[in-house]
Amino acid sequence: MSVQAKLSPLSKRLFEAKRQKKLSFEQIGSKMGRDEVWVAALFYGQAKPTPEDGEKLSSILNIPQAHINDDLGPEFFPDRGGLMSIPPTDPTLYRFYEMIQVYGYPMKAIIHEKFGDGIMSAIDYTVKIDKEEDPNGDRVKITMSGKFLPYKKF
Amino acid sequence: MSVQAKLSPLSKRLFEAKRQKKLSFEQIGSKMGRDEVWVAALFYGQAKPTPEDGEKLSSILNIPQAHINDDLGPEFFPDRGGLMSIPPTDPTLYRFYEMIQVYGYPMKAIIHEKFGDGIMSAIDYTVKIDKEEDPNGDRVKITMSGKFLPYKKF
Amino acid sequence: MSVQAKLSPLSKRLFEAKRQKKLSFEQIGSKMGRDEVWVAALFYGQAKPTPEDGEKLSSILNIPQAHINDDLGPEFFPDRGGLMSIPPTDPTLYRFYEMIQVYGYPMKAIIHEKFGDGIMSAIDYTVKIDKEEDPNGDRVKITMSGKFLPYKKF
Amino acid sequence: MSVQAKLSPLSKRLFEAKRQKKLSFEQIGSKMGRDEVWVAALFYGQAKPTPEDGEKLSSILNIPQAHINDDLGPEFFPDRGGLMSIPPTDPTLYRFYEMIQVYGYPMKAIIHEKFGDGIMSAIDYTVKIDKEEDPNGDRVKITMSGKFLPYKKF
Amino acid sequence: MSVQAKLSPLSKRLFEAKRQKKLSFEQIGSKMGRDEVWVAALFYGQAKPTPEDGEKLSSILNIPQAHINDDLGPEFFPDRGGLMSIPPTDPTLYRFYEMIQVYGYPMKAIIHEKFGDGIMSAIDYTVKIDKEEDPNGDRVKITMSGKFLPYKKF
Amino acid sequence: MSVQAKLSPLSKRLFEAKRQKKLSFEQIGSKMGRDEVWVAALFYGQAKPTPEDGEKLSSILNIPQAHINDDLGPEFFPDRGGLMSIPPTDPTLYRFYEMIQVYGYPMKAIIHEKFGDGIMSAIDYTVKIDKEEDPNGDRVKITMSGKFLPYKKF
Amino acid sequence: MSVQAKLSPLSKRLFEAKRQKKLSFEQIGSKMGRDEVWVAALFYGQAKPTPEDGEKLSSILNIPQAHINDDLGPEFFPDRGGLMSIPPTDPTLYRFYEMIQVYGYPMKAIIHEKFGDGIMSAIDYTVKIDKEEDPNGDRVKITMSGKFLPYKKF
Amino acid sequence: MSVQAKLSPLSKRLFEAKRQKKLSFEQIGSKMGRDEVWVAALFYGQAKPTPEDGEKLSSILNIPQAHINDDLGPEFFPDRGGLMSIPPTDPTLYRFYEMIQVYGYPMKAIIHEKFGDGIMSAIDYTVKIDKEEDPNGDRVKITMSGKFLPYKKF
Amino acid sequence: MSVQAKLSPLSKRLFEAKRQKKLSFEQIGSKMGRDEVWVAALFYGQAKPTPEDGEKLSSILNIPQAHINDDLGPEFFPDRGGLMSIPPTDPTLYRFYEMIQVYGYPMKAIIHEKFGDGIMSAIDYTVKIDKEEDPNGDRVKITMSGKFLPYKKF
Amino acid sequence: MSVQAKLSPLSKRLFEAKRQKKLSFEQIGSKMGRDEVWVAALFYGQAKPTPEDGEKLSSILNIPQAHINDDLGPEFFPDRGGLMSIPPTDPTLYRFYEMIQVYGYPMKAIIHEKFGDGIMSAIDYTVKIDKEEDPNGDRVKITMSGKFLPYKKF
Repeated sequence: MSVQAKLSPLSKRLFEAKRQKKLSFEQIGSKMGRDEVWVAALFYGQAKPTPEDGEKLSSILNIPQAHINDDLGPEFFPDRGGLMSIPPTDPTLYRFYEMIQVYGYPMKAIIHEKFGDGIMSAIDYTVKIDKEEDPNGDRVKITMSGKFLPYKKF
Repeated sequence: MSVQAKLSPLSKRLFEAKRQKKLSFEQIGSKMGRDEVWVAALFYGQAKPTPEDGEKLSSILNIPQAHINDDLGPEFFPDRGGLMSIPPTDPTLYRFYEMIQVYGYPMKAIIHEKFGDGIMSAIDYTVKIDKEEDPNGDRVKITMSGKFLPYKKF
Repeated sequence: MSVQAKLSPLSKRLFEAKRQKKLSFEQIGSKMGRDEVWVAALFYGQAKPTPEDGEKLSSILNIPQAHINDDLGPEFFPDRGGLMSIPPTDPTLYRFYEMIQVYGYPMKAIIHEKFGDGIMSAIDYTVKIDKEEDPNGDRVKITMSGKFLPYKKF
Repeated sequence: MSVQAKLSPLSKRLFEAKRQKKLSFEQIGSKMGRDEVWVAALFYGQAKPTPEDGEKLSSILNIPQAHINDDLGPEFFPDRGGLMSIPPTDPTLYRFYEMIQVYGYPMKAIIHEKFGDGIMSAIDYTVKIDKEEDPNGDRVKITMSGKFLPYKKF
Repeated sequence: MSVQAKLSPLSKRLFEAKRQKKLSFEQIGSKMGRDEVWVAALFYGQAKPTPEDGEKLSSILNIPQAHINDDLGPEFFPDRGGLMSIPPTDPTLYRFYEMIQVYGYPMKAIIHEKFGDGIMSAIDYTVKIDKEEDPNGDRVKITMSGKFLPYKKF
Repeated sequence: MSVQAKLSPLSKRLFEAKRQKKLSFEQIGSKMGRDEVWVAALFYGQAKPTPEDGEKLSSILNIPQAHINDDLGPEFFPDRGGLMSIPPTDPTLYRFYEMIQVYGYPMKAIIHEKFGDGIMSAIDYTVKIDKEEDPNGDRVKITMSGKFLPYKKF
Repeated sequence: MSVQAKLSPLSKRLFEAKRQKKLSFEQIGSKMGRDEVWVAALFYGQAKPTPEDGEKLSSILNIPQAHINDDLGPEFFPDRGGLMSIPPTDPTLYRFYEMIQVYGYPMKAIIHEKFGDGIMSAIDYTVKIDKEEDPNGDRVKITMSGKFLPYKKF
Repeated sequence: MSVQAKLSPLSKRLFEAKRQKKLSFEQIGSKMGRDEVWVAALFYGQAKPTPEDGEKLSSILNIPQAHINDDLGPEFFPDRGGLMSIPPTDPTLYRFYEMIQVYGYPMKAIIHEKFGDGIMSAIDYTVKIDKEEDPNGDRVKITMSGKFLPYKKF
Repeated sequence: MSVQAKLSPLSKRLFEAKRQKKLSFEQIGSKMGRDEVWVAALFYGQAKPTPEDGEKLSSILNIPQAHINDDLGPEFFPDRGGLMSIPPTDPTLYRFYEMIQVYGYPMKAIIHEKFGDGIMSAIDYTVKIDKEEDPNGDRVKITMSGKFLPYKKF
Repeated sequence: MSVQAKLSPLSKRLFEAKRQKKLSFEQIGSKMGRDEVWVAALFYGQAKPTPEDGEKLSSILNIPQAHINDDLGPEFFPDRGGLMSIPPTDPTLYRFYEMIQVYGYPMKAIIHEKFGDGIMSAIDYTVKIDKEEDPNGDRVKITMSGKFLPYKKF
C-alpha cells in the first residue's frame, strides 16, 4: 500500500493545501515557530499539535479550524510508526535503515561507554536536517538529540 | 542468535584484548586517529581497516599483525548488516529504529525540499556520538553526515 | 532454539548454582535487596548488576567474583529482548502477549486521557508479581510502574 | 492499515458520539458501573456487553438501542486481537510489548516459583490504569489480576 | 531444525530407553496411570511430571531417579510450544493445523452459541486418541475436553 | 482484515437472515439434517452444499434459491482456509492452535504407534462440539473423526 | 542451513555409501523393486521403509542391518517436509514451486470440474520422472497419480 | 484476500459468461483447440492468448472482441504467480505444495542423475490432468512436461 | 495486490494513453530523448521527470500539462520500490531476483577485487536492455552501469 | 548466519588456498579459461565444474584432485541460492536487489515489448563485470546475457 493511501483525510487535505499555496515545510515551520521536520511529521500524522499549533495551521493553510480540531484536536492521539513497510523499500528511507543495520551495535557500544546501561529516548527527542554545501557534492547533515534514560534497577 | 555468536573469531579476540587492557573505544580511536564509532564498527566486523589501521590495532592491543592481516587484510571484505534482528529486539537499538519509523517519511520530505530527488548516502557517510550535559538529564547527540546523491535520469 | 540454548555460559552457571543451593529468586532477592523479578531478569541476562549486586551474587551463590565480573562487569551491556520468539509459543508467555493484543489500544486510549500524548517508559520501569489467595482459585497480580514520557514537540 | 480502518461501523459511531459529547472513558465507565479500560475495550470491539451494558451505552451516548443490539447483541462475538500489527509499530503500544520481551521469562519463572506449572489467565483477567503523581515525573501504574490456571495432567 | 535437535538431553535419553525396551507409550502410560498422549507430551518436554510420575518413569525405563529429578524436578518448568515450525511442514501435523484453518471460525461460532463469550481452555484440557476400526478404512478419533472459560467483564 | 470483510456477499446475507430469524446453527442444522459445525462451515464459505442442502437453506432462511445457486451452485468450489490470520490473534481460535503446538508431536507419535506411517485425513473428516455440564465449570468436548491414510510406497 | 546439514547421520551414511559404490538411484531402485524417486525420498528421510526394504538396502549398500534398523526401524516415523526453505531458493526446486504458483488455481478448477469438491491425495500418491528425448532439447516428464478424496459432508 | 478479489474485471466477466453458458473448461478448450488447464490459466490471468485465441473466446462466450482485446491484447502481459498465498491455505492447493515439500529434493536428485546439472523449465512447459477410474477410488493423474535446461558455464 | 492496483491515477492514465496511441516505450523514449527503461520507470512511478520531460510527455500523450504537473511536478517525489512483492511471484521478475541470489556474492567478490571495499550505486545508475539475435534463440542483454562508491573511513 | 558459516568445507579450502597463493579470481579464471564471475560462483558452491575444470583447479591451487572430485565430482549438484538472506542486509548485495525493486517492472515491460510474453533465462545466462574508468569516479559495468524463453501455449 502506498504511503498516500495510509494518510488520513485531513493529512491529504493538509498536503493538498500546501501544494496549492506552494509553501515549503520550512516556510510553514517558521510561521508556526516549529522545526520543519516536526511540521512534516504533523502532516504525516506522526505528531500531535497543541491548540495553538492547530490555530496557526488553520490560518496558514486556510482550513477551517473546526476541521483541524475534529481530526487533530484534544481527542486525537497519533497511531505512530505505521507508514513504512519493514524493511522500507524506498531507497531514501532504506538508507536511514541501513545506517542502523551497519552502525547500530557500534552506536549502542559507544552510548554504553559514555553513559552506562540505558537508551537514547525516541520520545524526548528532536531531529534536524541541514544542507552542508560542499564542492565535492552537498551533504545532508542530520542532528538528533535524545535524553539518556538509564535502566532502573528494582 | 546472540550478537556475540555472530562475531568472527578475530572480532572476539579484539573485544577480549580491549577488555583486558581496559581500553575504551574513545582511547583506541584517539590512538588510531579514527572516530570511536568507526572503531567500534571495526570491532563488530562492519568496517575494513587500511593496512595502517591494522598495524596500529596490532600494536595497541598486542595482537600479532599477521593474525589481523589474515582476517582483516586485503582479501577481507565486510559482510555488513547482519548483526541485528529485524526489527531489533534490544531497546537501545529499537529506539534508533523507531526514530526512523516515526520520522522517516518526514525526513525524506525535508531532504526532497532541500536537495531534490535523491538519497543521503550511507556509504560516503560519517556518524558521531556526543554527550550533552543537561541538568534535566544528559542527552545523547548523534550527528550524521552523508553525501546527497541525486537520482540519475537516463 | 530453546531459551536455555540462548543463555550465556555465566547465566547457565547462575541457574545451576541456584538449583543446587535450592534457593528461590525471592530468597536471593531478599539477600540482595532487590525484587525477585529483577533478580530473575539478571539471571536471564536482561539486566546489568551494579558492582555491589555482583559481590552479593558471588557470595550468595558461591561463584568467584572474578567470573561474575568478567561477564557482568563494567564492560558488559545486556543485549535485551532476544529470548522470546515472536509471537511467543509458550502459553504462559503468550498470555502476557495476548493481554496486550486485546487490551493494548484500550490501554493506550486511557493513558492518553489521563496523561496526554506520550508513552509509559519501559526503562524507568518496575514490575512486581504477587499471589492473591482466592477461594475461587488463586490469582496472579502484576503491578507495573513506568514513568510517563510526553512526546517532545520541536 | 490504520486502527481506525479496522473498526466496525458501530465502533466508529461510538467514538464519534463520545467525541461530540466530550465524554471520557472514565465518565462513561462510572455511569455504566464498569472500569474505564473495559469500556475502551468495548469501543474497540474487544469485549462483549451484557444487555444492561447495551442499554446504558444507548442512553449515555444517545444511540438507538436497536442499533447497538444489531451489532453488539446476543449474536455478536468479538473477533479479538486483530487491531495491532505484530510487533506493534506505535511507540506506546510497543513499550507494552517490550516489557514482555525483556521481562517475560523472568515473570514466567516467578509465577512458576509462587504457583507451580501453569499460566496467568488472560480471560478471567482484569486490568486497571492509575496515575501516580510524582515530583520526578508522573508515573503510569498498571495493575493486572488474572486467575492462576494449573496445567492439567491426564 | 529437526524436532530431534530441539529435544533436551533427557528427552533424548527417554526416547532411547523406550526404544531399547520396546515399550509403547500406551504401555508406559498404563504402568504410570497416565494417558498415552500425556506421556508422549512428557517425552517431548511439553509436560511437567509430579514426583510420583518421576519415580515411576525412573523404574519403568531404568534411568536413575536423580537424573530425572535434575531435569524434570521441582525447578523444571516446560518451555512449551516450540517444537513445531509455523505452519508445520510435516503432513501429519499439518492436517491438525488445516482442520483449524478450515473449521476454526465455525467451531468458535458453535462454542459461542452453546456457552457464550469465552474460550475452551488449553490448560484445563485433556486429549485422547482412539482407533475406530472401519471396513472402509480405520479412523482416528480424537476426543478433546477443555473447561469453558467465560470472558470476565470488569 | 476482519473475518467479516473476508466473507462473500452471500455469506453476509446468510448471517443476516439467521440473525433476523433468530435461528441458531443447531436449529438450522436439525432442519437440514446436518451437524451444526458443518452448517457454520457452510455459512463461512468453507463447505459446498449439495443441491438439496441449497433448497433447504433457501426455504429455512427465505432466500430465493436462484441466489443461493448463483453463489453456492455446481460451479462453486470453496477456496478454503483463508479466514484466519496465522497464527490466529483471537483467543478462542488461538487456543485450538495452541493445543496443536503443545500436543501435536505427541499426537503424531500416538497415531504412528496405533496405525503406522500415515496421516489422519482432514477431508474424510467430521468434527462435533458438545457441552459437558460440570459443577466445576462446564466443559467443551470436541470429537473429531478422520480416516487414517497410510503413506503409499512405490 | 544447507540441505546436507539437515540430514540425519544415517542419511549421510546412505549417500556416502551410494557415492562410493557408484550406484544410481535407478540401480538401487531396480534392485529393491522400488521406483527411483521413492528411493531418493528414503535417502532424504522422507519415507519409511518396510523391514524388507531395510534388508535390501543393507545388502545393496553394505551397511549392517542393525544400523538401518536403529534409525529406520519400526519406531522411526519420518518428520517430513522440512528440507526446503519456503519458498525454495534453489532454481530447480523453485521451478516446481512456480508451476504451482502459476497453474495451481487452474488445476484446482479442472479437478473440481472432473471430480467435484475435494483434493488429490499427497499420501496415496506416486510420482515418476522420465526423460523424453527431443531434437529441440530433451524434456523432463513428471507423472503424478493421487487418489481423489471428496470432502465429507456431515 | 480471496482469489476472486484478485481477478481483473475481464477475468470476472469470463467466469460469469462461462457460468451462464454452463460451459466447462474442457468444452471451451476443445472449441479453442487448447488444453483445458491452459484455458483455465487464461481465465485466471496467468496466460496470454494469441489474437486467434481472443477471437475464439469472443465468439464462444459472446463477449465483444474489442473488450477482450483491451485487456488481453498485444499490450497485455500477465503478472503471474500472485493468486496464491504462500504457503497456500486451501487444502487442494496445499497438497500440490506438499508434494514438492516432501518429494522436491528427491525429484531434483533424479533429474540430476538423468540429465545433469540444470532445471526443468516452467516456461517451455505443459501440464495435463486426467481422471483415472479405479474401483478403490478414482485417481487424479497429472502429467507435466518441461524442457531440460542445462546450466551454462562461462 | 496486483501491480495495476498499486499505480497512481496518473500512472494509469499514462498507460491508457500509451495503449490508445499504440506507442511503444522505445518510441516515447526517442521522442523524449530518454532511454526506454527510464520512460517505463516513469510510467510506473519509479522516476521523477524534469519540467521538460513533463512537457514532452504532455504533448506526446495528449494529456494536459497541468495534470502531469499536479502529480509529477516539483512537489512530487517517488516512493520507490513498492511495486514488487518480496520475493517476486512473477517468473520474469523472479529470474532477475534469482540471478542475484545465485551470483550476488560472486559479483560482490569481483567488485571487491577490482575496486576495493564499497558498493555499485543504484542511484547514479543506468540500465539498458537490448535484443541480441541468435540462431539458437534470441538473447536479452542487460547492461548496467553504476558509480563505484568506496566506504568512507572516519 | 554469516556467509562463511554456510560454505562447504571444500569451499573454505578453496578460499584459503586462493588467499595463500595471493591469486585473484581473474588470474584463476584466465588459467582455467573461465570468466572470473563464474569462478567466484564455483568457489561459493553456486556452480558445477566439468572434470577438466576440476583438474585445472586442482593444479592451480595445489589441492589433490581426489578431494575436489569427492565434493565437486559427478555426484555433486549445487544447492543454489541459499547464501543470501532475503532481503540481503549487506549494502553491496542490497543495491543489486534495489535495482530490481525499482527497475524490475520497467525491465519486464521492455522485454515484453521487444520479445513478447516470456522470460530472460537465469540458466542459459552469463554475467560479466568490468571497470569503467571515469574522471567523476570509476563505474561498475555489469553485462548480463540470457536466452529469451517464450511462454509455451498448450
